[in-house]
Amino acid sequence: MALIHHYPFCPHSRFIRIILGEMGMEPQFVEERPWERRMEFLAINPAGTTPVLIEDGGFVVSGAGVIAEYLDETRGLGMGDRRLLPESPAERAEIRRLMDWFLNKFHEEVSSYLVHEKIYKRFIPMSMGGGAPDMAMIRAARANIRYHLQYIGYLTSKRNWLAGDKLSYADMAAAAHLSTADYLGDVPWDEQPTAKEWYARIKSRRAFRSILNDRIPGMAPVSHYTNLDF
Amino acid sequence: MALIHHYPFCPHSRFIRIILGEMGMEPQFVEERPWERRMEFLAINPAGTTPVLIEDGGFVVSGAGVIAEYLDETRGLGMGDRRLLPESPAERAEIRRLMDWFLNKFHEEVSSYLVHEKIYKRFIPMSMGGGAPDMAMIRAARANIRYHLQYIGYLTSKRNWLAGDKLSYADMAAAAHLSTADYLGDVPWDEQPTAKEWYARIKSRRAFRSILNDRIPGMAPVSHYTNLDF
Repeated sequence: MALIHHYPFCPHSRFIRIILGEMGMEPQFVEERPWERRMEFLAINPAGTTPVLIEDGGFVVSGAGVIAEYLDETRGLGMGDRRLLPESPAERAEIRRLMDWFLNKFHEEVSSYLVHEKIYKRFIPMSMGGGAPDMAMIRAARANIRYHLQYIGYLTSKRNWLAGDKLSYADMAAAAHLSTADYLGDVPWDEQPTAKEWYARIKSRRAFRSILNDRIPGMAPVSHYTNLDF
Repeated sequence: MALIHHYPFCPHSRFIRIILGEMGMEPQFVEERPWERRMEFLAINPAGTTPVLIEDGGFVVSGAGVIAEYLDETRGLGMGDRRLLPESPAERAEIRRLMDWFLNKFHEEVSSYLVHEKIYKRFIPMSMGGGAPDMAMIRAARANIRYHLQYIGYLTSKRNWLAGDKLSYADMAAAAHLSTADYLGDVPWDEQPTAKEWYARIKSRRAFRSILNDRIPGMAPVSHYTNLDF
């Protein structure tokens, strides 16, 4: 059985958890707190980031985008028409462009700020940079997310799913990152009705269920978080 | 004939130029100054980043990692044994891990600071944030690069090329990003002899030649920049 090192509120980890759910895989999950920079974990992934997939035989695959490609290459063909990274180079390029957008650009401009300031810093000792969130960072993330949501609104007004007719890795990357911001109440859904309708569809999938069950001790999610028809 | 929107000192653009050179492709190159955020360019790539590949028929592929995957899928098979992203999922995972390391982590911690502060800000109007480099950013980049160079030294002491026995996208991503720092004299090569020997090998390749010919007006490269046996 494969094993996943992840952190429940790490948006990159959530991306892989949703993919695994869609693929019907049930690996073993091990919680890793990436900010602790454990030596044993750094020996597995020198970048120190979650998620990391470890195959039965011990083969290690590190990083959300890399794991997604690896899962497609080793399990994707078996999914037939439900494959999340379809065969044509043109479709793949569009899906990867959007994966890159959410895994890197959105993360850098929105989700890394929100998750680090509001969640990780609750657990990081004061002496290591933990403590109260830096409100300037949170304001920046809240300003930036509006433009990303507008882009999702634009895409979903023209397409059934983000990258085209079919559900793909692009939707999962976007939804995984948005889900962390949504827990914190930082997604202005009402500004973009088609984006909201798209998120309600992806959130209703069985593969999303475990994401909606995650809780931060002492910090409840926004009231609509688990509401599938919000 | 394909067309590439690039900026000569954008490390991501250099990565794609080296790949194109290795593949023997000679597309048309159009210089784009990404900081100008031209509306026509944003219409092609909403992320506003270089490089962008436009195929003969008008199909657009945006982003260094996405273009690299697309080139492998559309041209890689024809390279046979010289393919830069070989067939086995395990080799591909290791190459992609290192691509991600240099295209994202190294960029975020080193090359984006150096290129933005020392090069781009020479051309950005003062009113738009241009002007003298922020020395705190440059000091951070110079501190960070030592740890990345150490990692390259570690890998090249155990392997022929970064990801294994054969030259791959991993070497090109690393060399492209390092080459911008090297122009500026910010790579402490003498600290890592095996990394230096690896870079001399990749720098000697024909595909690297155009990179070594780039010049910033009024800012000469460090003396060893074009020396193939430095």
